[in-house]
Amino acid sequence: MTATPSPSHGPADGSDGAPDITPEPATAAPSPVSRRRLLGAVGAGAAVAGAALGAGGTALATRDSGPGTAAPGGEPRAATVDFRGAHQAGIATPSQDRLCFATFDVAPGATRADLAALLTTWTAAAEAMTLGRQVPGGEGDLNTPPDDTGEAVGLTPGRLTVTIGYGPGLFDDRFGLAARRPSALKPLPALPGENLDPAVTGGDLCVQACADDPQVAFHAVRNLRRLGFGTVLPRWMELGFGRTSSTSPQQATPRNLMGFKDGTRNIDARDEKVMGEHVWIGEEEPQRWVRGGSYLVSRKIKMRMEQWDRDRLGDQQDVFGRYKSSGAPLTGHGEFDPPDFAAKSGGRYVIPEDSHIRLAAPENNKGLRILRRGYSYTDGIDKETGDLLGGLFFIAFMNTPDRFVTLQRVLGAHDALNEYIQHIGSGVFAVPPGLAAGQDWGRQLFG
Amino acid sequence: MTATPSPSHGPADGSDGAPDITPEPATAAPSPVSRRRLLGAVGAGAAVAGAALGAGGTALATRDSGPGTAAPGGEPRAATVDFRGAHQAGIATPSQDRLCFATFDVAPGATRADLAALLTTWTAAAEAMTLGRQVPGGEGDLNTPPDDTGEAVGLTPGRLTVTIGYGPGLFDDRFGLAARRPSALKPLPALPGENLDPAVTGGDLCVQACADDPQVAFHAVRNLRRLGFGTVLPRWMELGFGRTSSTSPQQATPRNLMGFKDGTRNIDARDEKVMGEHVWIGEEEPQRWVRGGSYLVSRKIKMRMEQWDRDRLGDQQDVFGRYKSSGAPLTGHGEFDPPDFAAKSGGRYVIPEDSHIRLAAPENNKGLRILRRGYSYTDGIDKETGDLLGGLFFIAFMNTPDRFVTLQRVLGAHDALNEYIQHIGSGVFAVPPGLAAGQDWGRQLFG
Repeated sequence: MTATPSPSHGPADGSDGAPDITPEPATAAPSPVSRRRLLGAVGAGAAVAGAALGAGGTALATRDSGPGTAAPGGEPRAATVDFRGAHQAGIATPSQDRLCFATFDVAPGATRADLAALLTTWTAAAEAMTLGRQVPGGEGDLNTPPDDTGEAVGLTPGRLTVTIGYGPGLFDDRFGLAARRPSALKPLPALPGENLDPAVTGGDLCVQACADDPQVAFHAVRNLRRLGFGTVLPRWMELGFGRTSSTSPQQATPRNLMGFKDGTRNIDARDEKVMGEHVWIGEEEPQRWVRGGSYLVSRKIKMRMEQWDRDRLGDQQDVFGRYKSSGAPLTGHGEFDPPDFAAKSGGRYVIPEDSHIRLAAPENNKGLRILRRGYSYTDGIDKETGDLLGGLFFIAFMNTPDRFVTLQRVLGAHDALNEYIQHIGSGVFAVPPGLAAGQDWGRQLFG
Repeated sequence: MTATPSPSHGPADGSDGAPDITPEPATAAPSPVSRRRLLGAVGAGAAVAGAALGAGGTALATRDSGPGTAAPGGEPRAATVDFRGAHQAGIATPSQDRLCFATFDVAPGATRADLAALLTTWTAAAEAMTLGRQVPGGEGDLNTPPDDTGEAVGLTPGRLTVTIGYGPGLFDDRFGLAARRPSALKPLPALPGENLDPAVTGGDLCVQACADDPQVAFHAVRNLRRLGFGTVLPRWMELGFGRTSSTSPQQATPRNLMGFKDGTRNIDARDEKVMGEHVWIGEEEPQRWVRGGSYLVSRKIKMRMEQWDRDRLGDQQDVFGRYKSSGAPLTGHGEFDPPDFAAKSGGRYVIPEDSHIRLAAPENNKGLRILRRGYSYTDGIDKETGDLLGGLFFIAFMNTPDRFVTLQRVLGAHDALNEYIQHIGSGVFAVPPGLAAGQDWGRQLFG
């Protein structure tokens, strides 16, 4: 996280604060003409005229202080997060407020070269957008489509991070990547209680865009999708409207759509030792190119909100093993008090045997931990039942997906929460490490 | 808009700043017990025990500074908007950044008394939530469901407004309201080019919740839906992730998902004379009870983003009649320059004849104006085509829906924009005036 002031989405050339470059004529004319008319009149000279008039096509700069220029959690909205580094941003980065997540399949017929070129293009676009700049492109003129779709112009970078991941299918025989498959990357096995919809499951690639402004996150995914036209096909996309995890105790713990604080015992992503043990892929991985990366597991978890909302407070608290108000464990008084899983009252455990925090606790899972980074979502109203559709779009990072599988086998079979939730979507992706200066995702993947 | 400091969603009793009331034991116990265990032990005395332990069930208060405590557009997130007044909030209120909009049908079998009671309940809940308080309820204990679903606890009020409207169907013979039907309230006629999906069209009632935090807006709709269980059935719901209109030139004009500034010539909602002429229902209305109210027209407008993004800049600008970068009309230099619809170049109008701003301009529609208050939405990926689904959830207020019908007959037939958009959802609602002290929506509607 840098304190780089970057007040609004500016020109693609990085000339922050430079004079606005617009396609309008620079001086008033007695009989104003639009650029199109002018270009139409000069006919074949259009490209030349366009160049002479400036790089208007790509430079939708603005000096506006647009909507959503606010400062979440004390961070200025204009702040940017470093795109390059040892690890990709968007994992240890303090959770931004909003999410746009999408997966893509490589289009039939697209080649290894096509994919490599796209990943190079995506790198440049993602880096520019995280700096609050527009998608870079050609010279730009009235006769070509704009290189950036424009809806983030005037908005601040909003701590945007763009994180890429690769699904198991990418390492089949299509692109010569079989020999580079990260060793733990394979489809997740069937897990207890899940009911997966193929329409929100899987994908050859995933993009996680997080920002404090949802329009900034949406814009990032949309523009990558646009650049991918002909090479990748969008498979599914989720908008997350409220974060449900903190990645640092310095952030207030948010509440999920069950009204409970979620992620109180999440990994503190500032703790490099813990991150090294549980989240980052280390020296044990034979594929050197993914060391310093991680695995991303996504689960779309539908909440049966109507049923939950009719459950009594005492039972809700027993399901989680925590007080709803403070988030304290049922054996404690403060949110961060360690749960006492041995405490009994009247012969029964105070934190019930099937409660979520007991089953998920590292103490009860041989120290197993994962870094959660989820968001609340809604799909509106169920047309059949009239029920409100929504829940948790769960994202977690870990140094092998086996951690999630182990945990979910326990939770899926025994968690009292299962009466009120169902896993309806799923994804697993290898997340490469961060890029060094001059490197791009294409060269990183293909070596 | 008041400057009332209301730092977070607090207790339902309105005791802002009072000590946190939680269901936890107030003092440490050597062998901690959960409330449920204690209540379980006392059996039939549970309700009494619950009361003795305090109003924990409804009082999910917190002193956290939660996520999303930012200050959009210079307004403190903690700010509240007055719920009562001559007009409902959420119309002339400076547009908040995010929206949750839902419509409901009255459930089969629900009576006039049921509906009146629900509207009274909704009033109290809506007013509490706009103050950043929880939904008020009974005494609350572990043996009853919480009165508030809890996910906004710890979030600031975010300038939440909750605006109610009534559809034409409500004034049929079910509830004895036929004699109180607002005179201009009837279903919209078929309009050119629309392709309406019944699943996102119509409704007996609508609720528009606007806030600078999407979770606060979602929470408001969800809790009204919960209170309506058995009396109303949700019909459809939309989340708007970015506002596309300003209601005051003091707000920066936002951009829609076509990347253009939208609503530059919108009504300045601070201008009472203009609002009186175009937006508020006046003395001409025989139904006194809706004078000071308005009509809300909603249109879910799908954008063909893939096609749009491949259109060249010159054509995009001709479609709107404005420069994409600055938002200036093609005949001007600044966003707020008045368009010169007479200007020609090479024998053709500079602002093309089928351009959106020419067709929509008051000058070309006998002075007709409406107050726009729309938001961008997305529905993810089209499973059939792989296209990105999304566009504009258009909301406008006016003193008769005929204004919209007149305008849309022109736009739907001739607007160059029609190549890239389609109206796929629709709603029309009479919006009653604001509530006086002690009044509620039930008594206001039924008289």
